[in-house]
Amino acid sequence: MAQLSSSMEPMLKLRDELDIVIPTIRNLDLLETWRPFFEPYHLIIIQDGDPSKTIKVPEGFDYELYNRNDINRILGHKASCISFKDSACRCFGYMVSKKKYIYTIDDDCFVAKDPSGKDINVIEQHMKNLLTPSTPHFFNTLYDPFASGAEFVRGYPFSMREGVKTVVSHGLWLNTPDYDAPTKLVKPLERNTKYVDAVMTIPKGTLFSMCGMNLAFDRELIGPAMYFGLMGDKHPITGYDDMWAGWCAKVICDHMGWGVKTGLPYVWHKKASNRSENLKREYEGIFCQEVGVPFLQSVVLPKECTSVQQCYLELAKQVKDTLGQVDPYFIKLADGMVTWIEAWDDLNTPKGNQKLKHHKWLVSKRRSKLITKKKYGVVDGKSKRDAN
Amino acid sequence: MAQLSSSMEPMLKLRDELDIVIPTIRNLDLLETWRPFFEPYHLIIIQDGDPSKTIKVPEGFDYELYNRNDINRILGHKASCISFKDSACRCFGYMVSKKKYIYTIDDDCFVAKDPSGKDINVIEQHMKNLLTPSTPHFFNTLYDPFASGAEFVRGYPFSMREGVKTVVSHGLWLNTPDYDAPTKLVKPLERNTKYVDAVMTIPKGTLFSMCGMNLAFDRELIGPAMYFGLMGDKHPITGYDDMWAGWCAKVICDHMGWGVKTGLPYVWHKKASNRSENLKREYEGIFCQEVGVPFLQSVVLPKECTSVQQCYLELAKQVKDTLGQVDPYFIKLADGMVTWIEAWDDLNTPKGNQKLKHHKWLVSKRRSKLITKKKYGVVDGKSKRDAN
Repeated sequence: MAQLSSSMEPMLKLRDELDIVIPTIRNLDLLETWRPFFEPYHLIIIQDGDPSKTIKVPEGFDYELYNRNDINRILGHKASCISFKDSACRCFGYMVSKKKYIYTIDDDCFVAKDPSGKDINVIEQHMKNLLTPSTPHFFNTLYDPFASGAEFVRGYPFSMREGVKTVVSHGLWLNTPDYDAPTKLVKPLERNTKYVDAVMTIPKGTLFSMCGMNLAFDRELIGPAMYFGLMGDKHPITGYDDMWAGWCAKVICDHMGWGVKTGLPYVWHKKASNRSENLKREYEGIFCQEVGVPFLQSVVLPKECTSVQQCYLELAKQVKDTLGQVDPYFIKLADGMVTWIEAWDDLNTPKGNQKLKHHKWLVSKRRSKLITKKKYGVVDGKSKRDAN
Repeated sequence: MAQLSSSMEPMLKLRDELDIVIPTIRNLDLLETWRPFFEPYHLIIIQDGDPSKTIKVPEGFDYELYNRNDINRILGHKASCISFKDSACRCFGYMVSKKKYIYTIDDDCFVAKDPSGKDINVIEQHMKNLLTPSTPHFFNTLYDPFASGAEFVRGYPFSMREGVKTVVSHGLWLNTPDYDAPTKLVKPLERNTKYVDAVMTIPKGTLFSMCGMNLAFDRELIGPAMYFGLMGDKHPITGYDDMWAGWCAKVICDHMGWGVKTGLPYVWHKKASNRSENLKREYEGIFCQEVGVPFLQSVVLPKECTSVQQCYLELAKQVKDTLGQVDPYFIKLADGMVTWIEAWDDLNTPKGNQKLKHHKWLVSKRRSKLITKKKYGVVDGKSKRDAN
């Protein structure tokens, strides 16, 4: 390895620096499989859909759970920027976290194994990626030069070997690949079985498809750009939440001089979605992708934008002015982007923190009530005896 | 696989479309290990150093061998553009080949095995890379979407899925990694043991270290940009021949809208060079790299340059004007670049082809004489009896 951040070794101290964000509509039984890896960390669960439904979380996990009512109460009218009935709602979790790093995972992802048969510790690998520099200015043919056993190859300019701060680590998926609806229709049985033992920096000026299934990032630095857009209920688009965030975040990383890595670690993805339904839902998203990507590839942020918030507001302006002429959806999206930054700033100030503490107390109180109910034999309004 | 060129399946027909170029100063016993893979193809061997020395080539291979005297005779005063006492001399082979594709390999590279223990067919993999499109405009997180079992991931714009023509396939090396002299000094025992099962396109606008150890390219398209520069004897720089070619070729590929892939296939690299000697030899090359890369990253070729030759001459001009002010070596190099294009054009016209045919006949006559000598017991001026 070319260099190793001194902060890498003591992974334990990261317990206080990372939150795991999970959006879900179902009981989180899958956490049992993640227990050895997730139990040391704090979970932020964003319950999508019907807020009256109770999401069961296996015992022993330290978590806070927000449903739609909580989001509405905390953000007031600004809650309009958080999607409903779409996993895009997860970005609310980024906003209420107070940690430096976020790891987010889908509720249909399980622990994958490396080729030696060992369970993959996703957080350890993501943190290795984030805590070592990126190399966006020149491509290293032996992949991440900061990975164990790797180096810069001959011809790599010495002046570029310090690299830059890594702020996004994009992990991959074995089994069900992350294909769009038309590809799934054409190749229903295709599975990703190839374990590619590599991490690499996505070069400056190049966009990529950032999937939210297995993703880590530096919330303190790039958090305000991780807005998952307006999707699902009341909007014509769904399923492009993570893509939108990835395209915008990459444009901003390039401008700020930060790096994005992709590759290891893998999760095991087990999706059982309705393919025709997906096509119907993604139809408008494909249109958004075809016009959005070329636009974002051409965006130039003025050098006056020196914070992520400034960059994001400038991007929102350009989205409104340019894409807004193509489709009125982009006008709404641009407004959502502005509201998102306002809401982010509200909650990430000393005053906002104070307000949030009260809400966190309310959320935790509800949870205690639920645990008490469970302890005394009442779950979901029924006593254990009734259930039997 | 996203698409497969119909010309891929019948690999046999490629026998007439690919030459293998090997620069060497020693007997080519290593060809025995390559026999199953190289025997169907024509070899162009460029003998470096003392032209009076006889290079032995195992029987059964179809080859032509050029030494310095041949190069001087064929190119006349333009032979000044071909390096001597440096593996950069190999580019002469690209010039005299009449095939569409070139595969070039170092004489210290052997057949590697894939993780299943199977011998890797380098030419088959390189041709898969070259015969399927590249995707330089958007990064596919599951690597080459045209590889077997792979696809474009969600969020990859449909308008970009046709890809572009691939003209360079850069293969990698197991065992001794391709490090520069300082890195070798610092990490003498480091070996590359990681087989990364991936091929990927190097995005547009990004330069990389192109190693000539295990490289294939489309000679007809990018050949004139594959000049390995002025290195070795009479020049202050050595060991940066392939790097220079790679940086220039990538700039021109980006301008022409062509793609460059890197990754599979691997060769087994077994280098036994003198590390301190390397440092002495590469010292000036490192300087060249530190100023050359930022310059080439900033080069813009005018849209009037519509052929590789035009691009290359424009590049030579810019090298002379800009880098020539930094060090007089670059003035010589720029002149060499112009001479190279002149020589290329001389040999790649109907008239040049005719002239070359005569030289090829001379080279083949010398070879027949050598075989006859060998048959009747005389090798290197000694009879077999004397040798015993």
